[in-house]
Amino acid sequence: HSQRQQEALKYAHQPATTLDGKRIEIAANLGGPAEAKAALEYGAEGVGLLRTEFLFLNRDAAPDEEEQTAVYREIMQGMGQHPVVARTLDIGGDKPASYLQLPVEMNPFLGIRGLRLTLMLPELFQTQLRALLRAGAGHHLKIMFPMVTSCEEIHQARYYIEQARADLSARSIEAATYCEIGIMVEVPAAALIADRLAEVVDFFSIGTNDLAQYTLAADRTNTSVTGLADALHPAVLRLIQMVIEAARPHHRWVGICGELAGDTLATPVLLGLGLDELSMNALAIPLVKQAIRRYTSVEARSIATHALALDSAAEVHAYLQQQAR
Amino acid sequence: HSQRQQEALKYAHQPATTLDGKRIEIAANLGGPAEAKAALEYGAEGVGLLRTEFLFLNRDAAPDEEEQTAVYREIMQGMGQHPVVARTLDIGGDKPASYLQLPVEMNPFLGIRGLRLTLMLPELFQTQLRALLRAGAGHHLKIMFPMVTSCEEIHQARYYIEQARADLSARSIEAATYCEIGIMVEVPAAALIADRLAEVVDFFSIGTNDLAQYTLAADRTNTSVTGLADALHPAVLRLIQMVIEAARPHHRWVGICGELAGDTLATPVLLGLGLDELSMNALAIPLVKQAIRRYTSVEARSIATHALALDSAAEVHAYLQQQAR
Ligand SMILES: [Mg+2]
Ligand SMILES: [Mg+2]
Repeated sequence: HSQRQQEALKYAHQPATTLDGKRIEIAANLGGPAEAKAALEYGAEGVGLLRTEFLFLNRDAAPDEEEQTAVYREIMQGMGQHPVVARTLDIGGDKPASYLQLPVEMNPFLGIRGLRLTLMLPELFQTQLRALLRAGAGHHLKIMFPMVTSCEEIHQARYYIEQARADLSARSIEAATYCEIGIMVEVPAAALIADRLAEVVDFFSIGTNDLAQYTLAADRTNTSVTGLADALHPAVLRLIQMVIEAARPHHRWVGICGELAGDTLATPVLLGLGLDELSMNALAIPLVKQAIRRYTSVEARSIATHALALDSAAEVHAYLQQQAR
Repeated sequence: HSQRQQEALKYAHQPATTLDGKRIEIAANLGGPAEAKAALEYGAEGVGLLRTEFLFLNRDAAPDEEEQTAVYREIMQGMGQHPVVARTLDIGGDKPASYLQLPVEMNPFLGIRGLRLTLMLPELFQTQLRALLRAGAGHHLKIMFPMVTSCEEIHQARYYIEQARADLSARSIEAATYCEIGIMVEVPAAALIADRLAEVVDFFSIGTNDLAQYTLAADRTNTSVTGLADALHPAVLRLIQMVIEAARPHHRWVGICGELAGDTLATPVLLGLGLDELSMNALAIPLVKQAIRRYTSVEARSIATHALALDSAAEVHAYLQQQAR
């Protein structure tokens, strides 16, 4: 296996294309500026998910615009002209950010979190948006919202981006001139109305961990049910398919930034479903790129079609084990 | 409005048929034996959801087979030859049943509950199944499992029903000779793979409260997000549509036993989606029957088609207000 890893590392900086030449963009998930260098070393072509929570946790007050700008800029500079998808603060009642004074909730995973929270805290939200737009100037920034369930939430979020832009412009501060606006698809509702959402966003990034958790009503941090929250469950695969089919007529790109993206067992089914981008832990990139190079689009499509019709996550796992190359 | 109620009560015992003669079965949700009489008085044609939790809560030990049999029998007798859909114990870590020694969970709504729990407690499960089968002898019993997400769970549950039957037979105790086995569709996964589940169940009853809660990742008991968990969200309506389309080729009936069934605002859209049965709080039955009588199937279908294409629950509400008769 370590030989496979060695071989994969050799080609880590080559693009990931199927045997018939279809290219998949491969990006890294980042949890902080220190990880940008490794991402590039392992062959990332960009950042598919910049988690911004690290800046907000375990402290007494939220970081101000200057502090955030400096950190985001360090990351943008580290990635040069590669695209960076920054997710706005994705936090909820289960996270240690006491200064937000979040209510105690019986089911925090079904509570105020992600975009729901930041829409309730406009000052916090706009500060982050201004910092992102500042750091994005001269780079390839995309902004992504977590936990979206309706078009209305996107209209509201876009309004705050415009406000942030207007603010910076009034202060004569340089900001990213254009940036794509996208959403995480991690609540089943977003996948189910992806055709409506496709009219108001530029891209979709599927968060398969949360999507599996909600689709199967199984807390992925609860060891008693964690086996149920399986992103290879046919129901989750069907939601992914729905998003891709809804995005295509609108020419929106669709990626995955959940753990599934970095799991080579899932590679043929994800190729077959037609994903444009896979974003993962940097360490997984070389092997996933190699896995992509082992299939034709037609083979992958046939594998996906078969998997979609199976009865359970266990059957999908067994089937993909058989198909692994 | 009270005049409408008076008028509706007059026709409460007539069947509910659309203007073009399509009949919808109207049933009551029951929380205990005392409610059977009122159900029939308000025009219920059966029980679409018998919640069995009342027998298990706030006590020191689970009820034994004899106690359960007596209570279920009282209900079956109260309903005569009308069908009664009994849901097996639907309990989880958030409910007061200390004798079950359930683990404390961070997100009990995403934890061990419903069928997940009873499959882990075979003795408890089989005791209830034996009691139900005994009470069902000579009546029209159907058994329904909550929180299903895969075919495998149904195979396991069916195995326990066979065990319960064999047990009773060995003891020469009379049991229901045949009963339909169905599932609640309340976890998004069940709706998404309804075509697979349709091969192994006899009916589907959609629990729109939980289905909305999971589809929108919004705890319906959390006042901060309760507005989000709206069963009229287009995503939930699309899941209902998926279940009906998956059930039809297998000739399985599909009902709703969530609050949506008793909401006359929703009646035309539910008719249009093609539901076979609506089960609700008995008090709502007369008005829902009257509402059904005001639409043709074609009108209802056109209303449903329109609602399915809207952007948000708010838009669906506004649209249905316009269409109300
Ligand atoms: Mg998430
Ligand atoms: Mg339920």
